[in-house]
Amino acid sequence: MLLLLHRAVVPRVRQACSLRSTPSRLCIQACSTNDSLQPQHFSLNFSGDNSGTKGWRIMGTLLGLGAVLAYHDHRCRAAQKSTPTYTKEEVSSHTTPETGIWVTLGSEVFDVTEFVGLHPGGPSKLMLAAGGPLEPFWALYAIHNQSHVRELLAQYKIGELNPENKVISTWDASDPYADDPVRHPALKVNSQHPFNAEPPPELLTENYITPNPIFFTRNHLPVPNLDPDTYRLHVVGGPGGQSLSLSLEDLYKFPKHEITVTLQCAGNRRSEMTQVKKVKGLEWRTGAISTARWGGARLCDVLAQAGHHLCETEAHVCFEGLDSDPTGTTYGASIPLARAMDPEAEVLLAYEMNGQPLPRDHGFPVRVVVPGVVGARHVKWLGRVSVEPEESFSHWQQRDYKGFSPSVDWDTVDFDSAPSIQELPVQSAITEPQDGETIESGEVTIKGYAWSGGGRAVIRVDVSLDGGLTWQAAELNGEEQRPRKAWAWRLWQMQAPVPAGQKELNIVCKAVDDSYNVQPDTVAPIWNLRGVLSNAWHRVHVHIAS
Amino acid sequence: MLLLLHRAVVPRVRQACSLRSTPSRLCIQACSTNDSLQPQHFSLNFSGDNSGTKGWRIMGTLLGLGAVLAYHDHRCRAAQKSTPTYTKEEVSSHTTPETGIWVTLGSEVFDVTEFVGLHPGGPSKLMLAAGGPLEPFWALYAIHNQSHVRELLAQYKIGELNPENKVISTWDASDPYADDPVRHPALKVNSQHPFNAEPPPELLTENYITPNPIFFTRNHLPVPNLDPDTYRLHVVGGPGGQSLSLSLEDLYKFPKHEITVTLQCAGNRRSEMTQVKKVKGLEWRTGAISTARWGGARLCDVLAQAGHHLCETEAHVCFEGLDSDPTGTTYGASIPLARAMDPEAEVLLAYEMNGQPLPRDHGFPVRVVVPGVVGARHVKWLGRVSVEPEESFSHWQQRDYKGFSPSVDWDTVDFDSAPSIQELPVQSAITEPQDGETIESGEVTIKGYAWSGGGRAVIRVDVSLDGGLTWQAAELNGEEQRPRKAWAWRLWQMQAPVPAGQKELNIVCKAVDDSYNVQPDTVAPIWNLRGVLSNAWHRVHVHIAS
Repeated sequence: MLLLLHRAVVPRVRQACSLRSTPSRLCIQACSTNDSLQPQHFSLNFSGDNSGTKGWRIMGTLLGLGAVLAYHDHRCRAAQKSTPTYTKEEVSSHTTPETGIWVTLGSEVFDVTEFVGLHPGGPSKLMLAAGGPLEPFWALYAIHNQSHVRELLAQYKIGELNPENKVISTWDASDPYADDPVRHPALKVNSQHPFNAEPPPELLTENYITPNPIFFTRNHLPVPNLDPDTYRLHVVGGPGGQSLSLSLEDLYKFPKHEITVTLQCAGNRRSEMTQVKKVKGLEWRTGAISTARWGGARLCDVLAQAGHHLCETEAHVCFEGLDSDPTGTTYGASIPLARAMDPEAEVLLAYEMNGQPLPRDHGFPVRVVVPGVVGARHVKWLGRVSVEPEESFSHWQQRDYKGFSPSVDWDTVDFDSAPSIQELPVQSAITEPQDGETIESGEVTIKGYAWSGGGRAVIRVDVSLDGGLTWQAAELNGEEQRPRKAWAWRLWQMQAPVPAGQKELNIVCKAVDDSYNVQPDTVAPIWNLRGVLSNAWHRVHVHIAS
Repeated sequence: MLLLLHRAVVPRVRQACSLRSTPSRLCIQACSTNDSLQPQHFSLNFSGDNSGTKGWRIMGTLLGLGAVLAYHDHRCRAAQKSTPTYTKEEVSSHTTPETGIWVTLGSEVFDVTEFVGLHPGGPSKLMLAAGGPLEPFWALYAIHNQSHVRELLAQYKIGELNPENKVISTWDASDPYADDPVRHPALKVNSQHPFNAEPPPELLTENYITPNPIFFTRNHLPVPNLDPDTYRLHVVGGPGGQSLSLSLEDLYKFPKHEITVTLQCAGNRRSEMTQVKKVKGLEWRTGAISTARWGGARLCDVLAQAGHHLCETEAHVCFEGLDSDPTGTTYGASIPLARAMDPEAEVLLAYEMNGQPLPRDHGFPVRVVVPGVVGARHVKWLGRVSVEPEESFSHWQQRDYKGFSPSVDWDTVDFDSAPSIQELPVQSAITEPQDGETIESGEVTIKGYAWSGGGRAVIRVDVSLDGGLTWQAAELNGEEQRPRKAWAWRLWQMQAPVPAGQKELNIVCKAVDDSYNVQPDTVAPIWNLRGVLSNAWHRVHVHIAS
């Protein structure tokens, strides 16, 4: 939660109007806060975005976001003055103390170089917006929506955005990614096509529930644009049962089940493996993990309606996405039938994410959520479900997302020799401070997350300031975990005195789950050619300001 | 499996008669072998041992074991000759190449000093019998029961045991341990009272199923001597149900369920933690783990008959043993009701171990077997079962068998802050070669075991010859593991060339389970004041013969 200066003495202002009203079932609270302000309605991807016809949807979205916070009066006044104007390109080149740090709000441009160090939420969070608009960040943190914040900001105004400076359409019918949704600027992009991005560490553990716009995104293909009215989920019938073709309305008729689940990509923290030896894969840092409250029908209920039962022989539930490559190959994955049919495993066909329809990047209108299991099995834009004697034949089930010995290389790898990743091992990482940062002497605050697969609860996080020689248990925060159903992460923190005279700290964290599994000490012995399952102790080296 | 010289050309001899016939349901095959010889019937503890009245049962047992292999003719001939006689004490003082290595078979004494290096099963296995009788070891390895083995042994005969040299009774009515059963001499004893012992590494992984006589024994109290005819298991009834008082015959009426389960003590490999810093506990090496085929009634069936159902609120099944200390305090432990009631978790009230009634040391007549869970919850000599809102209040549930951060000491420990150990983390160890051993150059054979808690299958064991810099995957042996029910270990082995010119090897192993959890690299960061959960990489340092 952000600190707020003079909060008590500043009168609250009327709620900025939202772009559009949303039906109550679909209402989104974009940020989680203890503040009693009404939530802002901020959504780059909402159900109306998915209404079928392709076309211009990007134009004006970024600038239009100014309306989220609706500085109407202010803007009107500003427009009447004669002030310097800047292009967006000019603004975007001001991101360092040397060039000056500029941001925009609506059409106004501010030089906040001198304010960065005073930012109550910490300099690093304001720096996320450097060179661009504040709106996407303020939408995550409703606390900014107060008059004294605007007054404070007004002091740093240096001009206006050039009114000619409109977003140019990049629509290109031959580009399969041209219709991908607009994303939040805070996301650290690992690849644009397909889109893969993670929230920065500064934001990742600010909220127990990750706001939808910064939830990590792992796409394998272009984002399909599906019409919720014509969408159908095909469920192949079981022996003696019958196949189903379910509309969204049909899915809503199943009992609605809501659970908080952390999703993690198998490649989370791959960048640390790359430092040992090159691997094939996206350079995820610590942010390929996020947590949401998912709502939907239980897979076991849907399968039962199609006539499926648990059988004695091993079987698998295969999922096919509606995302496809130019050859028509769709994304696919599978999970064991035993997990799918176990009501306690709570596998969902989710149509809601944090009280909203799924954003397009997260599978609109329906995705699978498999609590405790690697993200790769949570198939998005779900089109087809079937029960098969074998695992999904898709590339991502058979020839990817498997772990190997460090000795295995691309010449010797035998993908059939390793099981597909399902449950993930225990994991934790430090999100504050960051590697290479200079911190004040006195006391250091260390924050991070911890999670384990298979519903295993995190029972302890040990933190070391001396590279792993001595340890202290951190304080665990976040929701209490249910036995055997600890699907969501624990956030943790520790305040510790910085040992006097110390010039640097080697901060390390490691978590323990309720099977008392622990993280390995080092990366090299778990290195594997695909760079998955990177769960060694997380290490952060910081300097102490003298 | 032992190598056998000239096996094909030596005719098989008639099966040595067993001490007593056993009903077919209780028949024990003491050793597992591919040889087609009939199994020997070898049992230090069989159901007749538990027939109620206390008395002399020890006298003659050790010597009497000679009858297991019944060298009647041989002994008769030997008795007619005038040969030197030796006391058992004299024999037991000959255990090194310097003193000579003596063993006995029946009443005969052999000096096998020169044969040790020629032993087809390896010198270390024969050395286990040095200074004592061969029978307990030959009973484990039926392959010895062939005439050429006896002929070979006869060459080393040096005399007879002194016929006056009888076992002296040590019965002492004031000693609560006086009635403990006789144990196999191969067991490495960590404490006599209560009895705690492990099989030596040489024998531990010789068989996928651990022979009962060398199954590791972890007792907390004296072994009770229970009469199977009057034995009753008290099961407290559930809401609307009724309490049960079950005789053994009553238990036999429930559907019999048989499963192969590995049991591991939480303190297995504690001796490695002690090397980091002193801990409180028995000095287990790598042998506090063993595997048996258990037979019994499923706990869920018995609980259902007593009117118990799975409930929404968290509950626990509490077990009380019939072993007690002088104050009447009995051993106790508990497991979550959800596990107990889950048919897939296969929790047993076991009355058979490898086709035999439970040996006294392993809980005769009934013990709990909780697949995938720490040994401490497998309550032996089971007297009482109840369902409670809280975990067992016993010392061993509340104030022991929990894991803590390395920083926690006996002044700061808060046992309420940590969950009781249930599922155990992934584990592996090397059983061959042994630490400090000198091995031949050329090729080295490395063997060991690997196991994980919670039914998670072992999917890979990596072995390093260079202290962990490079790794190779070992070959996994033993039974195929069932998905989600991998209750038993995998044995593994690897043949590797010894790098030329090498003077020593630092052999290391680490296992991976199907949640891709791995073992931590080092012991110190998982050190805890009770020395439990010691599952760092296992390291063995060996010298290469020049």
